[in-house]
Amino acid sequence: MSGVANARARESFLERARAELGADAVVTERTDLEGYEKGWRYGAGRTWAAVRPRTPDEVSAVLALASELGLRVQPIGANTGLVGASNPDASGEQLVLSLERLNRTIEVDAVDRTVLVDAGVTLSALNEALAPHGLTFPIDLGADPHIGGMIATNCGGARLIRYGDVRANLLGLEVALPDGTLVDALKALRKDNTGLDLRQLCCGTSGAFGVITRAVLRLSGIPQQRAAALVALASGEAALRLLSRLESSAGEVLTAFEAISRNALEATLRHGANLRDPFPSGTPAYAVIVELTSTLPEGVLDLGTLLESTLGELMESEDGEEMLDVLVSGGRDFWEIRHQISESLRHEGHVLALDLSVPRSRLPELSRRATKRLAETHPFVTVCDFGHWGDGGTHFNLVWDPATAPREVDVLTRELQDAIYELCVRELRGSFSAEHGVGPHNRHYYERFVAPELRRLHEALVREVDPERRLGHRE
Amino acid sequence: MSGVANARARESFLERARAELGADAVVTERTDLEGYEKGWRYGAGRTWAAVRPRTPDEVSAVLALASELGLRVQPIGANTGLVGASNPDASGEQLVLSLERLNRTIEVDAVDRTVLVDAGVTLSALNEALAPHGLTFPIDLGADPHIGGMIATNCGGARLIRYGDVRANLLGLEVALPDGTLVDALKALRKDNTGLDLRQLCCGTSGAFGVITRAVLRLSGIPQQRAAALVALASGEAALRLLSRLESSAGEVLTAFEAISRNALEATLRHGANLRDPFPSGTPAYAVIVELTSTLPEGVLDLGTLLESTLGELMESEDGEEMLDVLVSGGRDFWEIRHQISESLRHEGHVLALDLSVPRSRLPELSRRATKRLAETHPFVTVCDFGHWGDGGTHFNLVWDPATAPREVDVLTRELQDAIYELCVRELRGSFSAEHGVGPHNRHYYERFVAPELRRLHEALVREVDPERRLGHRE
Repeated sequence: MSGVANARARESFLERARAELGADAVVTERTDLEGYEKGWRYGAGRTWAAVRPRTPDEVSAVLALASELGLRVQPIGANTGLVGASNPDASGEQLVLSLERLNRTIEVDAVDRTVLVDAGVTLSALNEALAPHGLTFPIDLGADPHIGGMIATNCGGARLIRYGDVRANLLGLEVALPDGTLVDALKALRKDNTGLDLRQLCCGTSGAFGVITRAVLRLSGIPQQRAAALVALASGEAALRLLSRLESSAGEVLTAFEAISRNALEATLRHGANLRDPFPSGTPAYAVIVELTSTLPEGVLDLGTLLESTLGELMESEDGEEMLDVLVSGGRDFWEIRHQISESLRHEGHVLALDLSVPRSRLPELSRRATKRLAETHPFVTVCDFGHWGDGGTHFNLVWDPATAPREVDVLTRELQDAIYELCVRELRGSFSAEHGVGPHNRHYYERFVAPELRRLHEALVREVDPERRLGHRE
Repeated sequence: MSGVANARARESFLERARAELGADAVVTERTDLEGYEKGWRYGAGRTWAAVRPRTPDEVSAVLALASELGLRVQPIGANTGLVGASNPDASGEQLVLSLERLNRTIEVDAVDRTVLVDAGVTLSALNEALAPHGLTFPIDLGADPHIGGMIATNCGGARLIRYGDVRANLLGLEVALPDGTLVDALKALRKDNTGLDLRQLCCGTSGAFGVITRAVLRLSGIPQQRAAALVALASGEAALRLLSRLESSAGEVLTAFEAISRNALEATLRHGANLRDPFPSGTPAYAVIVELTSTLPEGVLDLGTLLESTLGELMESEDGEEMLDVLVSGGRDFWEIRHQISESLRHEGHVLALDLSVPRSRLPELSRRATKRLAETHPFVTVCDFGHWGDGGTHFNLVWDPATAPREVDVLTRELQDAIYELCVRELRGSFSAEHGVGPHNRHYYERFVAPELRRLHEALVREVDPERRLGHRE
């Protein structure tokens, strides 16, 4: 499109969008646009305007108008993503489509244990509305994203072993295709096998095929009780043995199993706020937060007793030697440590946060082999891994002091990603993006590691719904 | 293809398949072929040969060879499907690709709680191999299908409220595309968000995009205890209230909630083997089997006591009036009744078994409105509904005496499907195929009820992997 034609198309868009959606739906002030341009961790670009529809029909109208005028569109939710997928690119061409005002519908069906929800509702707002019904949408995250963004990235979080990922709790979906067509698959059905499933196409594909406007989610009961322990372990292998024992003995009430490596724990104790060292006699190779929850009352099932007796028996068993210490929560919140790790690491230097997963049985091998390899090639880097060992996910954080490092951050980032992703994906059959999805930040590795046949199928779908590639990032 | 060219291609295929896979891999005897031609409930056609590969590479070789020679291929698993999707069509053109010998691999990783399994392994063989590890693949079905077929139809079954469907337990997949290319996505990962997901494309799409050769499945612990009750209820609404109460009070240990309507129960008591009438003082509107299971030992959580006290309290509450009777299992197996319903109904006349689902809160409305409508249009039909009310699925069986019915079975089948599917799908936002998938038997309704945009995306994918439409059914 020529510069003049492009300027005319933009002007026409703004005029018609103001007329159809109201003047306050359109943002063009430079200072107001900046909030859409920069991502939470990665991603930064430029936009010329943002539009903020309030209903699915308005989303549809915006996309149809952009389509008619040949304008590119970049959707954005709560901007909490970690791969730069929701911010405009550097071209300055993209119109931002913000879902922030698509947040009015939260319709609960308590018998069905489902909710119909607008894509722009935040996780916290949804759970606040569900609480009076004794229900919750149980995906547990550090951030507070929009429901639509959670679906587009198929969030996992810290309690996946109990509740599954977003996909497992997604019953229905409404999506606006790039040309504005609204596809209604808003079914509140737990069983429905009628061919290609819109939910599965749009969950975890970063919005490549359309803009999610509404969803039907399956809900869970709010737990009535909770018991937690912090266990000091002599090795990663010992942590896995503890996981196996707990899965056998605590079964369906095991809700979280979060491991924190020695390096990550020490950094957190150095920089975290109001933290007492849980293991003053020596930081273990891994500290594991074990959490049990239940919707059953204590009179029927006493989680505190169950957890104490299970861990007590293990201490006495042959595996006891590798369990160095056990702290059972007497009101102490072990998650306080967990939630301060990321922030604490930033005080130690530059942090490259890799979002990996491997088969659970290979988690210790990943840490050991990566540490050994980096000691040879990048001895100035410290491995500070922690994460969701119960589901095989690990926040594999690499920390170094940029002032004394031999090369620039960008160069090192690429070197380290190359080395660790190769180990994780090719040698251990893991994933280079366990729960953050694919975006400009890791797109290069998508090309490298994802099977060419799958990329071809992805392209075939994009050609079908968006032949001019006007939606989202192009690279 | 001309008749001569076709005959030559077949001959060439047989010769090369015998050379590559061994003579016993190829079946051409008419009597041996008959078993592949007729389906379990629907589906009947004709084939000229069957080939039985033993490994993923052999499946790949068969497809590549068929592709080279321009031959059509129809895959078949254990032939337990209920929509005719696995049998050859009437053209006589299709080569049958049977997975019956692709059943050698069952590799358990006990720490990971996963298994790598060949697509031709039966559900029962898998669970037998898992039992020594204390593990199970918890999809509970009446039939004994292959794992590959279970994935292609995304089976649900009777314990979905506890364990989810096949999709929820599927971690990795290997698929042979129609041209023979093997796509390896055999990851044993609980978290992996790297774009379009092969599992989601191939699960529940009846093998449209390729032949499933291997899978990685997530496993669950075998329950240590089980408690069951049979509850007599005055209405469908009362059954839903019981479901809500149980979800609140039994939470995570509620494993099955199966409703049986009066008509279905009476027919089963008339024709079933060795059944005692559980409610001799009068058959209730609905009888519900409630099952709790747990991997916790009885000393920690006593399911029998929990179930008795929960139901006892409900009997004493304001909802007690609509709970007509409660039988708690003292060794009695209430599933005996449940498992004899389908067979019993066949003694009553012709059975049209519709596999419906609606939002759970609308199950009573479905029964009431369908019964009322049929009483006006088809008064000779009896509604005998039963099924998985906990997940909104219902086997909506319509029974009539063909000897006295005013029209032929085929004509009536179409009339009744039209009427009930319209009510279920359009008026109650339900599904015309809750768990059986789509095949020749219900293909017509796929065209009618599935969004045109989704069908278009399905076609785009088929064009990409199978431009000549050689795999599976064409209609």
